[in-house]
Amino acid sequence: MATSLGAQTAQERAAIFAECNRFLNGHGRKSLQETLEALAEEAGTDEVSDIYGTGALIEDFEQEIASLLGKEAAVFLPTGTMAQQIALRIWCERAHCTLVGFHPTCHLQLHEQMGYERLHGLHARLIGEQHRLLTVDDLHLVAEPLAALLIELPQREIGGQLPEWDELQAEIAWARERHIAVHMDGARLWESAPYYGREYAEVAALFDSVYVSFYKGIGGISGAMLTGTQDFIAQARVWQVRHGGRPIALFPYVLAARAGLHVRITRFPRYHRRAVEIAEALSAIPGIMVKPRLPQAHMMHVYLPGSVAALSAANAEIARESRVQLTRSFSATELPGYSKLELTVGDAVEALSTEEIGELFRQLMDRVHGYPE
Amino acid sequence: MATSLGAQTAQERAAIFAECNRFLNGHGRKSLQETLEALAEEAGTDEVSDIYGTGALIEDFEQEIASLLGKEAAVFLPTGTMAQQIALRIWCERAHCTLVGFHPTCHLQLHEQMGYERLHGLHARLIGEQHRLLTVDDLHLVAEPLAALLIELPQREIGGQLPEWDELQAEIAWARERHIAVHMDGARLWESAPYYGREYAEVAALFDSVYVSFYKGIGGISGAMLTGTQDFIAQARVWQVRHGGRPIALFPYVLAARAGLHVRITRFPRYHRRAVEIAEALSAIPGIMVKPRLPQAHMMHVYLPGSVAALSAANAEIARESRVQLTRSFSATELPGYSKLELTVGDAVEALSTEEIGELFRQLMDRVHGYPE
Repeated sequence: MATSLGAQTAQERAAIFAECNRFLNGHGRKSLQETLEALAEEAGTDEVSDIYGTGALIEDFEQEIASLLGKEAAVFLPTGTMAQQIALRIWCERAHCTLVGFHPTCHLQLHEQMGYERLHGLHARLIGEQHRLLTVDDLHLVAEPLAALLIELPQREIGGQLPEWDELQAEIAWARERHIAVHMDGARLWESAPYYGREYAEVAALFDSVYVSFYKGIGGISGAMLTGTQDFIAQARVWQVRHGGRPIALFPYVLAARAGLHVRITRFPRYHRRAVEIAEALSAIPGIMVKPRLPQAHMMHVYLPGSVAALSAANAEIARESRVQLTRSFSATELPGYSKLELTVGDAVEALSTEEIGELFRQLMDRVHGYPE
Repeated sequence: MATSLGAQTAQERAAIFAECNRFLNGHGRKSLQETLEALAEEAGTDEVSDIYGTGALIEDFEQEIASLLGKEAAVFLPTGTMAQQIALRIWCERAHCTLVGFHPTCHLQLHEQMGYERLHGLHARLIGEQHRLLTVDDLHLVAEPLAALLIELPQREIGGQLPEWDELQAEIAWARERHIAVHMDGARLWESAPYYGREYAEVAALFDSVYVSFYKGIGGISGAMLTGTQDFIAQARVWQVRHGGRPIALFPYVLAARAGLHVRITRFPRYHRRAVEIAEALSAIPGIMVKPRLPQAHMMHVYLPGSVAALSAANAEIARESRVQLTRSFSATELPGYSKLELTVGDAVEALSTEEIGELFRQLMDRVHGYPE
């Protein structure tokens, strides 16, 4: 089957993907025009723009999220990067300590150009190992006092894994005993509730501050919220100004987040069930491995034999022929000869049966094995 | 005429203003729905969302602004607060010096919760006096080495005043001789070009980095751009990530900024002419003073005899009767018995003749003089 596997350019692949009409990842494609028209409808005739973080539109939505998470208050921010740096800075100033603890794959360590250090002068004690969940045993190895402990639920960089409930409680207890504030990176918290089978507020109650995101599972445009006590959020609003994170208006993000939340909040158990089903189907294909073996949230990492180049070429060919985009990209892994893709289940998967997904991955494997390395 | 001057609550005033259909300030009122429908139209069927600062929509607009200002490159940022802190941090790191110079009414000093100090560890030498333009004589009093000098064109907090062209050149020369980088706070640069009668690029050429805004004169939703050399902007993009200022999508802001720029870029001379005309009419009313006497840009500060409370009550009464909003608010001044309002000329003024504006201000004065203090 290795006939037409020319190595396309990035542009050629983008053109092929642009023609796709079904997607394994996310919520599917919507044009900007459709997105903006939907927002106009969401605004209706009554909504008025927020002004520098004030006004019913943004304040009511903040209160809605605070209530959902059982917290006193919340502040809407343009990004999670801003939300989490602010949270850690506040905990550090309160503790008169610049050291925070988090997993080596924490977003702050990998994707924020070390803003926590270069902007805030904070330092990190990396806790646990890169390819597995943080555990309470890792915490017992921490010898220095921490101002805050950040726990990500679920841990994205290891395929969306979640600690078991007892383990999580033990980690929190370790921090509490040492008067260490506990902050949740809940970028994908919405997607983790089905696994615990608990209310969001019950999970959030373990934490002093919680950050959630609105453009991943929720399907908004962008934006995040930081939640906690009244005084914590009041302080966060000061840092919001310092960060340049309080534009005169955030209404497009707020409207999109609110609409997405209301539509999708009940769908996360469905995403989780489909993720489990797909993981089982893919694991059955020789050579393919899935992490975690049984998805705990809506996502997984799929390990495939083949180079990034060969897989990318084969994936584009399949996209061209079937108009199904399995993934936008692959990345290299630690395992020789293996690459991986991240699979995030959302609305788009409704258009694909698990059988068809399995069949497309078998095609992918067939094509890659014939590809000249 | 002091019959119905009850002191309304803030809520009552907001309700009165909500019924207004003409406005002395800005570009008039548009519902969120109308705004979003206009953006959907601007997007058309072709535009695709930016992704983390990439994609034709945002990159082409960045290049358009860079070209307009005669700079190599530009980066779109959520706020001016972010743009300017980033600019100064870069100049400081390059100069191995943490001291920057700016006017006491600089936005960084007044409206950013001292982010430049608390986030970036920078320090400021305040140059010149609060109520007048910064001058080259002030610069000669600076004894410490500066990494950067920030000049705001026009200076908002003193009514939108601009230094004369020769004076501005002398200030730049002072900095150049000392190898001090010069940064422009051009939040209202668009509005200042008519006074100099020069291309934007000619004004911008005096500066190493220039920040411009898109929601003031341009009438976008929010957003700013920082412009400079390729390597400067590449460095700014790193700080953008650290600030949490690179959301996955900025398209609503970009579309609104682009549409606003294209519609309004040619209107600034008209705003300026109207500002001058209105200033002359208001100055002719006994008791009223305008700063600057002859507006240099699109704005002015109007000084009125009367307390903030009395003026606010009278202003709301006029708004109720005429459905014209002269201002949203007044503020206290240094002059005993005088308050002020900021007047910013935009599209909305087209619905008001200068004669009518004068008449409304005369009514305001009559009412205030009858108001029980």
